[in-house]
Amino acid sequence: MSLRDIFENIDENREKALNRLSELVRIPSISAEQKGAECADALIDIIKKELNFNTRKVPTSGAPVVYAESGSDAETTLLFYNHYDVQPVDPLEEWNTPPFEPAIQEGKMYGRGVEDNKGNIIARIFAIKAYQTIMGDLPINIKFIIEGQEEIGSPYLHEFVEKYPDLVQGDFCIWESGHRDIQGRQQVWLGVKGILYLNLEVTGAKRDIHSSWGGVVENPAWELVWALSSLKNKDQFILIEGFYDDVRPPTEEELENLKMIPFGEEAYYEDFGIKQFMETGEELKKAYYYAPSLTIDGLDSGYKGPGAKTIIPAEAKAKIDFRLVPNQNPTDILNKFKKHLQKFHFNKVKITSSHGYPPARTPLSSKYLKIIRETGEKLYRSPFIIHPTTAGSGPMYLFIEKMDCISFGCGHAKSLPHAPNENIKIEDLLLNMKHLAAIFHSFRS
Amino acid sequence: MSLRDIFENIDENREKALNRLSELVRIPSISAEQKGAECADALIDIIKKELNFNTRKVPTSGAPVVYAESGSDAETTLLFYNHYDVQPVDPLEEWNTPPFEPAIQEGKMYGRGVEDNKGNIIARIFAIKAYQTIMGDLPINIKFIIEGQEEIGSPYLHEFVEKYPDLVQGDFCIWESGHRDIQGRQQVWLGVKGILYLNLEVTGAKRDIHSSWGGVVENPAWELVWALSSLKNKDQFILIEGFYDDVRPPTEEELENLKMIPFGEEAYYEDFGIKQFMETGEELKKAYYYAPSLTIDGLDSGYKGPGAKTIIPAEAKAKIDFRLVPNQNPTDILNKFKKHLQKFHFNKVKITSSHGYPPARTPLSSKYLKIIRETGEKLYRSPFIIHPTTAGSGPMYLFIEKMDCISFGCGHAKSLPHAPNENIKIEDLLLNMKHLAAIFHSFRS
Repeated sequence: MSLRDIFENIDENREKALNRLSELVRIPSISAEQKGAECADALIDIIKKELNFNTRKVPTSGAPVVYAESGSDAETTLLFYNHYDVQPVDPLEEWNTPPFEPAIQEGKMYGRGVEDNKGNIIARIFAIKAYQTIMGDLPINIKFIIEGQEEIGSPYLHEFVEKYPDLVQGDFCIWESGHRDIQGRQQVWLGVKGILYLNLEVTGAKRDIHSSWGGVVENPAWELVWALSSLKNKDQFILIEGFYDDVRPPTEEELENLKMIPFGEEAYYEDFGIKQFMETGEELKKAYYYAPSLTIDGLDSGYKGPGAKTIIPAEAKAKIDFRLVPNQNPTDILNKFKKHLQKFHFNKVKITSSHGYPPARTPLSSKYLKIIRETGEKLYRSPFIIHPTTAGSGPMYLFIEKMDCISFGCGHAKSLPHAPNENIKIEDLLLNMKHLAAIFHSFRS
Repeated sequence: MSLRDIFENIDENREKALNRLSELVRIPSISAEQKGAECADALIDIIKKELNFNTRKVPTSGAPVVYAESGSDAETTLLFYNHYDVQPVDPLEEWNTPPFEPAIQEGKMYGRGVEDNKGNIIARIFAIKAYQTIMGDLPINIKFIIEGQEEIGSPYLHEFVEKYPDLVQGDFCIWESGHRDIQGRQQVWLGVKGILYLNLEVTGAKRDIHSSWGGVVENPAWELVWALSSLKNKDQFILIEGFYDDVRPPTEEELENLKMIPFGEEAYYEDFGIKQFMETGEELKKAYYYAPSLTIDGLDSGYKGPGAKTIIPAEAKAKIDFRLVPNQNPTDILNKFKKHLQKFHFNKVKITSSHGYPPARTPLSSKYLKIIRETGEKLYRSPFIIHPTTAGSGPMYLFIEKMDCISFGCGHAKSLPHAPNENIKIEDLLLNMKHLAAIFHSFRS
């Protein structure tokens, strides 16, 4: 029996896989609306019926985690990280078909979660099923950790990781998802950025005061503006002492890889409605993938209506986020931020809330990346694009110290995750299953 | 016949004056709600019936101006500036009696406009009436300019002033109003600050962009924060080149007068809910009366809701106001502001609207102030407090180049203009009439 037989089996089970995916998509497991914990049960039911895996539901302070393992005694262990929750569906009127009634049209399946992340869960289950059906036993141990609150920042996944360190063991992890670009090239991500999100507030008088007092009554809006502007200069350099201390600059190998990534500026110019980025060429890519950033997400103070109102606002608020890169740490950055406020006497700037998590990145030299790439490029018949990281964030930090984490999946350039009319190409779903089977097979001695 | 006879006549006509005031107060002439142009007609009717004055209604692009003049050929001309419009009455539920049904309780009259400014109009009319009744002719020419949109910034008064320069001629002007302080001391104001109010806006991408792009997509909120913080430093020094060029520092005489002004910090600490002002003692008074200021009135950008949203805002807005002192000019300051933005390359900061007017201030050495003070201190039997300016703004600039403008009136410390339960003490109303009559009488040769 060979890979070809496995691939045939995958094609033969196309309908079964799509039916299982439809079962999951029909459950509106929107974590932001505390919906869909029954999705965990449905998922356990599917894994038990399709695979001979030890499966259980593990409670957390939030949604339960679905844990499953093959339980074989192979040398290498692969862990799949996925999530069964989905994004909200607004604006509902822009959906061509109801988001929780999966619809197949012209080779695509539509529905909330078909790509992010239920399609990938089904691809992984049916890749294993095909492999087991044709080859009997798996040449690697496989584990699933499927959480239910990824879309709201994985607030309780750490509980599972801390309580069951033995379960969260493996040699490499295939992360939740990924897609092919507009030219059909498969994209792979080796990491995520960290984040530190802060809500800031300055309070002044107990009510808004007439601005004729502007010269003698302290103004929280000024204090906030001065504090913010002390954090970053117009050259985008972050002025907090020691902020860049732990930033690991890209290696020669990483810079070489960067050249292979097509950034596609023009597509963003139109999408965003901008004329340029703040950098160009390789510098743009270096900034996007390898540099930390500091963003003002919101400003709120005083009078915001039409025309004029002459007041000293009673309070001023800002929301800011730091995107962090290896080896920065949000706790350390928060401390440095606090020291900065002290040093420049911004004692009135209060941090009313903060949350964050560290960055995570798998090295380009990872031997598992090599396997994923070699098996995949042969199957897809084109080179993979290797991104050192997404510019976004995720809970990969909970795994990265134990194993390499590599993200790829069954989406395409217009899969529209998080947006109306989310979809996958069924062809991509099957190709992704075959790629996974080929990865398993590469461990056969 | 003497002043004493005039004072007796004033007391005798108490009821008539209160009835006339009630007539005016019953008309809800709220300029912010475009109400009460009929108040101009009622006022003309009252002036015609009570005084032998040439009276007319002069249209503007907004509410009409009521103009009246004694038409005598005396050497000196006194102009009264007043307004017949009033503030809105919200919150209505806090009024103990209906705002447009004047009520007399324990020696006070309550109603919207009894102090600001209808009580002062009536006091001025009945002071003249008493003088004419007892003495026959007036020893000075008297003019009234009574506008109908002071409470919304006098947007069209300049039309009247520009179209009828001959009418706006005089030797001194008694400005709209004033009050006695908590100790009963009569307060006099010699000026108003100027103002320049700006709406600022920076636009970026055509929509909010995920903040993972924070390092490479320009952020309007940062641009705004940097631009604002370039305008003023933490020592409250305004950094616009040439901003202070035309500021006239207080003279020795003015500094001496400043010492006589009780500031009453403690009362404000409680009212504002603050622990201190940014200055203390004489420096506080210098800053309040003699220094220009720059206030952020509002900030608005990106996400302002609860929790976290990670975005680069599509736009950022601010409202700011400059309070100006002699001899600063809002047009000049606007030009300097624009040059500042250019100089520091804040080309993306757009001024979406601007309005303002110049400061105005009558010198302490004014001979008309001397007359007002000497006649008044004798009558009130206590020294007057002379404020070089209010810290607020007003249309005095339309008159100040032609004549001294001096503001005082019939209010007391708890008259609550602009607030529920606006009131005057009837005793103060009569005293104010007597003071005005004494001023007229001082011009009798």
